[in-house]
Amino acid sequence: MHDALDNVRAPVARQGDGAAALARRFSEVRAATAALAAPLSAEDCAAQSMPEASPVKWHLAHTTWFFETFVLERWERGSVPFDPAFRVLFNSYYQRVGPQHPRPRRGLLTRPALATVLAWREAVDARVRHLLQQAEPPPALASMVELGLQHEQQHQELIATDVKHLLSCHPAWPPYHPQPPPALGRPSGPPQPLVWHEFPGGLVEIGHQGTGFAFDNEGPRHPVWLQPYALADRPVSNADYLAFVEDGGYREPAHWLAEGWDWVCSQGLGHPLYWRQRGQGWEEFTLAGARPLEPAQPVVHLSYYEADAYARWAGARLPTEAEWEAAAGSARPEEGHWAGAGVLHPRAAPPGERGDPLRQLFGDVWEWTQSSYAPYPGFVPAPGAVGEYNGKFMVNQYVLRGGSCATPAGHVRASYRNFFPATARWQFSGLRLARDGG
Amino acid sequence: MHDALDNVRAPVARQGDGAAALARRFSEVRAATAALAAPLSAEDCAAQSMPEASPVKWHLAHTTWFFETFVLERWERGSVPFDPAFRVLFNSYYQRVGPQHPRPRRGLLTRPALATVLAWREAVDARVRHLLQQAEPPPALASMVELGLQHEQQHQELIATDVKHLLSCHPAWPPYHPQPPPALGRPSGPPQPLVWHEFPGGLVEIGHQGTGFAFDNEGPRHPVWLQPYALADRPVSNADYLAFVEDGGYREPAHWLAEGWDWVCSQGLGHPLYWRQRGQGWEEFTLAGARPLEPAQPVVHLSYYEADAYARWAGARLPTEAEWEAAAGSARPEEGHWAGAGVLHPRAAPPGERGDPLRQLFGDVWEWTQSSYAPYPGFVPAPGAVGEYNGKFMVNQYVLRGGSCATPAGHVRASYRNFFPATARWQFSGLRLARDGG
Amino acid sequence: MHDALDNVRAPVARQGDGAAALARRFSEVRAATAALAAPLSAEDCAAQSMPEASPVKWHLAHTTWFFETFVLERWERGSVPFDPAFRVLFNSYYQRVGPQHPRPRRGLLTRPALATVLAWREAVDARVRHLLQQAEPPPALASMVELGLQHEQQHQELIATDVKHLLSCHPAWPPYHPQPPPALGRPSGPPQPLVWHEFPGGLVEIGHQGTGFAFDNEGPRHPVWLQPYALADRPVSNADYLAFVEDGGYREPAHWLAEGWDWVCSQGLGHPLYWRQRGQGWEEFTLAGARPLEPAQPVVHLSYYEADAYARWAGARLPTEAEWEAAAGSARPEEGHWAGAGVLHPRAAPPGERGDPLRQLFGDVWEWTQSSYAPYPGFVPAPGAVGEYNGKFMVNQYVLRGGSCATPAGHVRASYRNFFPATARWQFSGLRLARDGG
Amino acid sequence: MHDALDNVRAPVARQGDGAAALARRFSEVRAATAALAAPLSAEDCAAQSMPEASPVKWHLAHTTWFFETFVLERWERGSVPFDPAFRVLFNSYYQRVGPQHPRPRRGLLTRPALATVLAWREAVDARVRHLLQQAEPPPALASMVELGLQHEQQHQELIATDVKHLLSCHPAWPPYHPQPPPALGRPSGPPQPLVWHEFPGGLVEIGHQGTGFAFDNEGPRHPVWLQPYALADRPVSNADYLAFVEDGGYREPAHWLAEGWDWVCSQGLGHPLYWRQRGQGWEEFTLAGARPLEPAQPVVHLSYYEADAYARWAGARLPTEAEWEAAAGSARPEEGHWAGAGVLHPRAAPPGERGDPLRQLFGDVWEWTQSSYAPYPGFVPAPGAVGEYNGKFMVNQYVLRGGSCATPAGHVRASYRNFFPATARWQFSGLRLARDGG
Repeated sequence: MHDALDNVRAPVARQGDGAAALARRFSEVRAATAALAAPLSAEDCAAQSMPEASPVKWHLAHTTWFFETFVLERWERGSVPFDPAFRVLFNSYYQRVGPQHPRPRRGLLTRPALATVLAWREAVDARVRHLLQQAEPPPALASMVELGLQHEQQHQELIATDVKHLLSCHPAWPPYHPQPPPALGRPSGPPQPLVWHEFPGGLVEIGHQGTGFAFDNEGPRHPVWLQPYALADRPVSNADYLAFVEDGGYREPAHWLAEGWDWVCSQGLGHPLYWRQRGQGWEEFTLAGARPLEPAQPVVHLSYYEADAYARWAGARLPTEAEWEAAAGSARPEEGHWAGAGVLHPRAAPPGERGDPLRQLFGDVWEWTQSSYAPYPGFVPAPGAVGEYNGKFMVNQYVLRGGSCATPAGHVRASYRNFFPATARWQFSGLRLARDGG
Repeated sequence: MHDALDNVRAPVARQGDGAAALARRFSEVRAATAALAAPLSAEDCAAQSMPEASPVKWHLAHTTWFFETFVLERWERGSVPFDPAFRVLFNSYYQRVGPQHPRPRRGLLTRPALATVLAWREAVDARVRHLLQQAEPPPALASMVELGLQHEQQHQELIATDVKHLLSCHPAWPPYHPQPPPALGRPSGPPQPLVWHEFPGGLVEIGHQGTGFAFDNEGPRHPVWLQPYALADRPVSNADYLAFVEDGGYREPAHWLAEGWDWVCSQGLGHPLYWRQRGQGWEEFTLAGARPLEPAQPVVHLSYYEADAYARWAGARLPTEAEWEAAAGSARPEEGHWAGAGVLHPRAAPPGERGDPLRQLFGDVWEWTQSSYAPYPGFVPAPGAVGEYNGKFMVNQYVLRGGSCATPAGHVRASYRNFFPATARWQFSGLRLARDGG
Repeated sequence: MHDALDNVRAPVARQGDGAAALARRFSEVRAATAALAAPLSAEDCAAQSMPEASPVKWHLAHTTWFFETFVLERWERGSVPFDPAFRVLFNSYYQRVGPQHPRPRRGLLTRPALATVLAWREAVDARVRHLLQQAEPPPALASMVELGLQHEQQHQELIATDVKHLLSCHPAWPPYHPQPPPALGRPSGPPQPLVWHEFPGGLVEIGHQGTGFAFDNEGPRHPVWLQPYALADRPVSNADYLAFVEDGGYREPAHWLAEGWDWVCSQGLGHPLYWRQRGQGWEEFTLAGARPLEPAQPVVHLSYYEADAYARWAGARLPTEAEWEAAAGSARPEEGHWAGAGVLHPRAAPPGERGDPLRQLFGDVWEWTQSSYAPYPGFVPAPGAVGEYNGKFMVNQYVLRGGSCATPAGHVRASYRNFFPATARWQFSGLRLARDGG
Repeated sequence: MHDALDNVRAPVARQGDGAAALARRFSEVRAATAALAAPLSAEDCAAQSMPEASPVKWHLAHTTWFFETFVLERWERGSVPFDPAFRVLFNSYYQRVGPQHPRPRRGLLTRPALATVLAWREAVDARVRHLLQQAEPPPALASMVELGLQHEQQHQELIATDVKHLLSCHPAWPPYHPQPPPALGRPSGPPQPLVWHEFPGGLVEIGHQGTGFAFDNEGPRHPVWLQPYALADRPVSNADYLAFVEDGGYREPAHWLAEGWDWVCSQGLGHPLYWRQRGQGWEEFTLAGARPLEPAQPVVHLSYYEADAYARWAGARLPTEAEWEAAAGSARPEEGHWAGAGVLHPRAAPPGERGDPLRQLFGDVWEWTQSSYAPYPGFVPAPGAVGEYNGKFMVNQYVLRGGSCATPAGHVRASYRNFFPATARWQFSGLRLARDGG
């Protein structure tokens, strides 16, 4: 779900969503984005810490560009762009829409100012709301607005991960939160013992079904044959991962994929992205600044290589995405610790709650799977610019499942496929162990 | 199958292979390697054209190192190495065996001389043959020798691809063959029309079974569910691919994976690795030097990106490895145009031969599949140094199937999995189109 | 004069400068820096366009750091830093003062905010002024303040060049000036014909003498033997340089130093940094945005390689720094077009003014010399952190003379030595032709 | 004197050299080159260890190319090239002669074989000798042959340095010499105490004069004003330099030029190129393999940065090239330890020999000066391809003086200017200390 995860399934408007409901939802989602940027200065919003991350201002602008380009240009009568230059500046990668400003240089766009981008947001919001106040907006319009909102939610998560990376580059590890969220301050005890849960495998179906919204990479729904397997009941915790670190895990090539070992050596790595030693112990960077490493919290900000190496060291493996989805099931409610809680950091598994054998499947941390991001059988790209490149990221990326503490509630499903290269560490990425069953 | 495809299944000695038969086979395979190097000078054998390729001398030495390290050290009484320094110089990547000379600097090893390496080969061959002349060699010894021979055959193919790359770097495109093989000189007509062959899918089994040798990445055999699909009856030809080139295929981003498009632009590519325009037409570099592009020959030396882009342009897709293997079937004889023919260049499909719906599945060109190289369900790495890193290449690589004109006869099976990164072009890699069926 | 030209001669306080005069001058210079930043937003001030350039906010902070570290820490009783963290954040390269934030990552310091840096400036200014209000400030204090002001003026020029580079990275070439300065709008005619002025050479003296301030690299004054030579009466103009461009100057290796030719080819260059073709003509980027190329204005933003290649093409050469300084003479008033004019762009030579044979020696554009930046005979580094590394930049840099339209008036002398690597283009650098005389 | 030091002064044939003498000298110099390659295998001669170095075979071929292109093409009636392809393959950088094979890829030219290159040498030698047997060869021909021989001698030194670098890349540090030269085996005691010798400075003349051969960069002879200075009586020894290493010289930034410090840190350096610690002591790589570090031998294989840092640490500085040449004087006989001795490694200063205050000015090690390589006043490039680029290397290089143990006897004069970039370490480069005098 880098800023390019705009690969979308021709969306189906939510059943029962009238124009009013859609307009309300539109206002809510758009406001949530602005709220995420509210604690930040114009300077915080303008900087770009690495080519893979974008400035917050760019996210604010690009999501607005989406509505102006794909909704207003098409459905607004006599539509006039707020500023024609923004069409190029804030296009991410839609080649049919036209040229793009080079991605690694987004941090050099000090103009337009943040205030101008916010004014643009307001102007576009008013125009879209006006459009939705028609007696009967055409279904294609409603679908496109829904798509824009899903796209917006993806960028909400990227705002959190990208600003976290930026602030981590400052030697003082300054906080994003003006006040640390109460939940972060609560020290947790040791993690609960890990329990395995067995699944019989056989012929299962995965992929999206139903009438709700889904991205096109979630379909078509199709059968998959699985061997028996088992999944851990919770994500790997900081305490678990620390044992790997202290066992010399980063110095023993036998645990690593060959490419991962080269990466560890060339980068000189010895721990997860946001960890550092302080005195006798460890602390980690959070959006509330530096905090002591909490043993029971899920480990987060791992690359695929690290997740895989840990699993190998632990005598286990990463699940496939089909194993994960079959275990999650389509019936399970997508409850979890989401961005709306305002913490933006994973929480320890709630103690004693043993009703559901698999805890924290949704929310807290994205879970790396061993599955390369590939088209499902029968996948057909949608026509036009929006769906132009549906499959164009389907190489050298690995699938993550379940959403994180930075994902907006309601955005993720059991069939939802996030994906990143094996080196990516700045997402809220952790892992859940799997092993062969039977 | 880069020089590191030493990931092996604890091999089962061939049924009925007595010690004498194994010794004979040992002599034959070892002699075939030396024969490949025979047309080359010591200088030709010493150079390294890129980090991914190795000098021929290194291949000659490394395969010898394998037998000295894994066979003689263990089974030869009072074994003394030919030269102890060779243990480090010619170790490829076995970390448990000890340190390695850095791969990109193999071309700087002007010592030992080629003559010394050839003398080492002869000495080791004599010692191994002596070992095999025991009344009853232990099964583990026979298995290890068999593994060494399979390993040797993989390096035979790499000798052909690596020396081809080296010679291609010379502005004169000098030949490897002292005399061009007659088969290469035969001009072919246009390619035969492409015919689709349908497969019903359903629950199939893939992976190696039986008692013959297989690498460990070919197992365990397991069920896979397939949707209906179709495969082309022959690989994509030069004429087919030239139509893509002439249609501006390398200038239109819509055909390409995003990563592939970046690669095409940053490298400034416009055609396959060994093509060049000459006057009104095209010629390609072969191991017999420059030759006019033959329309009916399979296109070869494509990266995964190019194979995928071509398929997209052609309204088709790459097959999955399960589709390929299910179509190949375990019963099909592995007949094809192999290295033993001495041509080392793919040949046009034999005209009129319509008995088998899928021609050239084996030999001629490796066929890219869309499948990322990943462990099969239940895959367990073998213990010890030989099997130490069985899975360590299983990331960011794609599977190729079927063998090529540079593969020794008898080396490849329907279950055989070759793999390379998406950028690799110097292997004999082409493609066969697939599409959804039903 | 990159941000590191803090190599200084133990300065001598200006004769007749009482404490009051110094305090007044302190206030004026400090205010001039703030005035340069006034037209910019916090976002404009925070971005860093390349490793060689720094954010404006960093310049504002680093110059303040200089006074807090080298003046207040030493002479202010019970001195307490505004914020101890700033000591590391805004240290440029003084290793004895302690560690430094990595230069290429200055653009990631979104904290402290611009407003905080400005408040820091005001607080430090008040404290320094208070110190200077003592009845009799010690001479060492006065010298250090003077040094801080010279240092501040160097950073004033860098603010102009660095923000110009940043804005040039924006596709719209946005202006720095809220209103274009009137002088820029005046179209000039063709340049005046170039006239040569002969100098006899012989034994001359160069280097600073007298009691005024000078950097330590300007001394000791020493004799140099010169052969007869001639200098052009004005810098090379845009019209002159355009003739080189249109003659294919960037495509003919014979004009270039070998290293310059490699640079031109690898960067794909065909004109000066801020030129672009527009329709039939050319325009250039100025701090007032895009402007038509004015033929009579001095060409500016050349690398050493370009200046040298032009001179070679023109049948001339670059002057040595000794030739330049001997011609400038110590008696000549340092009059010219300086930053105070508010234009920040070179102007055409004033027509008809023929009293002085060498026009525009000072101001408008820095003039590349062929002299490598090296210590003068007898050069001895000053003790302590301030002078710690006086000579540490004296390798692989070339000397420029005379100051530019972005240099504050009064900052530059005939003996002043600016220096940059041969690739630097973003300074206001041009050239004046020289040739052998006699 | 990289392989490109073909910048030459229109040479004057040696006085008294008749055609016979020139032919004899031609045969001797050409034979000396072949003799240097004699201990090497074809493999040794084909490899290229870094872009700055060339294969020995390339040197053998390029020097032959010089005679075929610049002598035979012009003076031989009906001249036919040995192989027309060699004109491009072995052109170093003469753009007027035509295109060149890319320098970093010279190691990939396995064809032509070494044997072919040697045959080419013999054929060209015979043809040139035949030309010189004319009753009266024209003076321009004699001059061009002399130039070719000087060029050949430069490449003789590069053969030694390039093959030394290649062999140093082999972990076993294999020898070039089949038998170590006796002189190398002689252990030396501690170095003699360093004695300073004072020079009065004043107006001196430097640059070549007289009728013998000189490269064009050695002229015109011209006056230079020098301040009083002193030079050490011998080069810095291994014992001297070891004290710097053991004092932490590579860990203290105060000793280094800023650019040198960045280079030391980024490369992780801690000693000269060919040193390594072995047990309690040090050994160095020589062309006879690894040898214990001899305290009294001149330190060798230093970069300019290292030479400058050592001098700073020792409270001294590098001399300028004018200081060096004025001290060497034109009357001093150019005696020293040259390549002809067959040792190819610097020797300790001969004990007790105190007649000449400056020992080892010539031979043993090239001495870095602090002078940037720049044109002398009045320097005018020669016309035509041979002199086409006389000045094109005069940027970002530093001058070395005096020749080395790998320079052929008779090649170097007091006015001879060698030059390399500040990072170059693989030449036989050391230093002699200087300081201000008076």
